Order: sequence, then structure tokens, then C-alpha cells
Amino acid sequence: MEQPHDTSPGAPVRSGIPEHGRVPRYYAVKAHLVALVDGLGEGGALPAERDLAVRYGVSRETLRQALRELVLEGRLRRQGRGTVVAGPKLEQPLSLSSYTEGVRRQGRRPGRTLIGLERLAAAGPLAAELDLPEGEGVWHMERVLLADDERIGLESTYVAVARVPRLDEEFDPDSSFYAFLRERPGLALGGAEERIETVLATPREALLVGTPPALPMLLLHRLSRDAGGRPLERVRTLYRGDRFSFTTRLDG
Amino acid sequence: MEQPHDTSPGAPVRSGIPEHGRVPRYYAVKAHLVALVDGLGEGGALPAERDLAVRYGVSRETLRQALRELVLEGRLRRQGRGTVVAGPKLEQPLSLSSYTEGVRRQGRRPGRTLIGLERLAAAGPLAAELDLPEGEGVWHMERVLLADDERIGLESTYVAVARVPRLDEEFDPDSSFYAFLRERPGLALGGAEERIETVLATPREALLVGTPPALPMLLLHRLSRDAGGRPLERVRTLYRGDRFSFTTRLDG
Repeated sequence: MEQPHDTSPGAPVRSGIPEHGRVPRYYAVKAHLVALVDGLGEGGALPAERDLAVRYGVSRETLRQALRELVLEGRLRRQGRGTVVAGPKLEQPLSLSSYTEGVRRQGRRPGRTLIGLERLAAAGPLAAELDLPEGEGVWHMERVLLADDERIGLESTYVAVARVPRLDEEFDPDSSFYAFLRERPGLALGGAEERIETVLATPREALLVGTPPALPMLLLHRLSRDAGGRPLERVRTLYRGDRFSFTTRLDG
Repeated sequence: MEQPHDTSPGAPVRSGIPEHGRVPRYYAVKAHLVALVDGLGEGGALPAERDLAVRYGVSRETLRQALRELVLEGRLRRQGRGTVVAGPKLEQPLSLSSYTEGVRRQGRRPGRTLIGLERLAAAGPLAAELDLPEGEGVWHMERVLLADDERIGLESTYVAVARVPRLDEEFDPDSSFYAFLRERPGLALGGAEERIETVLATPREALLVGTPPALPMLLLHRLSRDAGGRPLERVRTLYRGDRFSFTTRLDG
């Protein structure tokens, strides 16, 4: 089978095929499927698995492994009983603005579904990060993040009860928490430190976000500070790796 | 089996175990292994697979699935015939400074191994991104990135031949490209746009970086501009997802 080569600078060099050594059979099929996907364009339906297996001369199992990777990477998505070409990943700017604003800027409708709001006693790493005495009250708010009703992430926010004592009564969980903070004296955001890594979805996360288990996710840790530099909130946001990317602009 | 719960704000809520529904057997074992790993600390050796399988009352295959995920996530690494607790992920600041400077700041010794330096004719997306006429000469330099002799990434740099005509003769590929540019009039970096996503390693990339195939990687796309705002280089850097994280500081 002659291998197609994608030569755009964003694609893997030589389409990821080693100069020497053996190419796994499923991966050779995957490179062909990538070329097919590029030709079909967003929303295009893939031929039936059986027909594709015949076309590339491989078993159904080998074909499925190639499809599975393309689904994990967000190139394809399952739709009903078929498989269609997915849209491009959302591009979320790394900035102090909220999820809400980032999604709106891309012409999508942001939403959030509350999973739970609980009061914890600060302990160990949480107390240290928020600079609170051990045992101090902390809200933990967990929400599923939506874009046009599609579940795309899961967010845990930790904030001292002393900062927002009536969060449970005053805050609508399907709204922007940063807009809520901005309206309160002394709670405007002054800055934040962020760390980005990739992790696999846990079974609980996969269930809540509706993804295949062990999908690679982008995990964003954030520690926000108020204008005076005091820690304000600790956030852990998990974004679907197949639907999200982050962008940033660096200046010299 | 009683489930251990990690309550730190960086960890998955309820250690990733669903409130309702079934926990996959391998994942229950994984949650126990995470607690064991935290107790052992960096470099600590895990007991033999056979003994762990007996301890948790699961098959060797189930135990191996849990170990495999922890290796993919960078919590464990293989060492000889055993498995040891891995060190924390490297933290690379998102900034205009180079890979070299980022790695040095963490007290590690940066290195690069040249895979290839070729002259291409700019076409399609590459010509558009670098704002070059079709057919114009472009260098493509591919290097494996090292930290203390450990292979941790793979970088492709695309730059117009007209900008650095004698790159092949004047540049030492085991040195910082940005330091090289800074010494040349008109080639100092003025800014860059970056995009970060997660992808799976291709067979070629896995071979070059020495990772398991299909390891989740962090992929950083960069378009750098000179002080006048003209595109200078297009870079595609793949970092091992089990060894790398990115950090950034946001100001209000």
C-alpha cells in the first residue's frame, strides 16, 4: 500500500511513518483515513466499516483500531451508527477572561450544569494553596461545561467561604463565576498562575463528560489572585482533548 | 475493596470513581496504586507484578492495564525489568525564550540531536503561514529535544532560506536556534502566536522519542514574527505528555 504524505507544517513529518522499520498495519490504514477525512470535510460521512476494511485489505479489528485513534484525536466522531468528520477543535485563549467569554468569542453558546456544591474544611495542599488556616471553610463547586449543549469539560472551583459566604444562595451555577466575582468589592481578579498538562479521563469524568474512557484530556490548573495578590480561587478544569486547544500570544 | 480518596485540589474529584454505576476493575486497582505511589516517593520501586496482583486480588492482565495507564500519565516509569515512581513533570514556561532557557531554568541540561536538515519548496499552508511566494526555498530542521540526555520531545522548525541562507554551514544543531537568530541583524523575535493541543504519538515519533506508541503528547504550534511583525519561523514541537507541562502567568 503506497502511503499518502501530508506535508503541511502542522502535520507529523512524513505523516508519522518511520523512514526505516515496520509500520503497524492499523497505522498505515490510519494515514489513508486521514487523507480521506481531509477530502470529505466537516460533517462528511465515512463509508461503512465493512467497505473500508475491504478497500484497505485489512480485518475489521485493524480498521476499528485506526478509527478509534482518529476519534480519540477529534478527527472523527460517532454519529448514530455511523462515523462522520468532526469539526475543528475549539480554540480557547489563555487569558484571565472566563470560559464563558472564550466560548462566546467563537460564536458558541456557553452553558454549565451543576454537579455539586459542597462545603469542605480546608486541609493539606488546598489550605496551603489558598493560604488558609487548616479547617477553614471552603466551597467546592463542580460543574460540567457546555458549548451549544455539547459537554466539553468538567470544572472544580475551590474558594474560601469567608470570601463568598452566600455563594449557595446568591450564585446561579449556570452563569459566569467571574462575572459574579466582579460585582463584589475586593473580589476582582488581579492575576493567575496556570499549569497545563495532559491526563487520561477517569471513569467518573468520562461518565460526566460523556467521553470514551481513557480519552486524553487537557487539564488546566489555575490559582487566581485578587488585586492585592492574595489567593482567591483554585480551579481544576478538564477539557476534552478531542474538542479543545489553547491559544496564546507572546510578546517580546 | 475500599477505595482510597485523594482530596487534593489537583486530583480528580472522588479520585475519579463514579458516585453511582460500576467502577472498572482495573481502575479500582489504579486508585490503590496511586496511593501506593504517593507513599513510595520518586524513584521508589514497585513490588513485583505477581505480588501486586495477589494483593489486590486481580489477574496479571488487569494489574498491567492499571500500570500501563500510570506509565502513560507519567506517574510510573519502566526501569530495567521493574517499575519505579517517576519524578514530577517538567514545567516549561510559555514564553518567547527558547526550549534551552526553559530547561536550564529547571536545573536540567538541554540538548538536541539533529534528525535532518532539508531544503523544501514552500507550498500550500506552509507558504501561506510564512507569507512566502509558492516555490520559495524553506529550511526544515528536525531535532530530538533532550533534558539530561533523556529524550523528551521532537521539534520541526521551518524558516525561509532567504532569512538564514547559510543555516546548514553556520548553525550548530545542538545549540539554541533563538540564540543564533538573536546574533543576526533583523532576526530578533518580536512575538509569537501559539496553539497547544494533545495528540497521540505516531509510530515515527514514538521511535524517535523512545516512547510507547500512542502515548498522549502535548503539541505546540508556534508562528514567530520578527520585530517588524513579519512571519519568521513556523515551529511544531511535540513534548512527551508524561514528562511535560506548560506554565503561564496571566495579568489583569
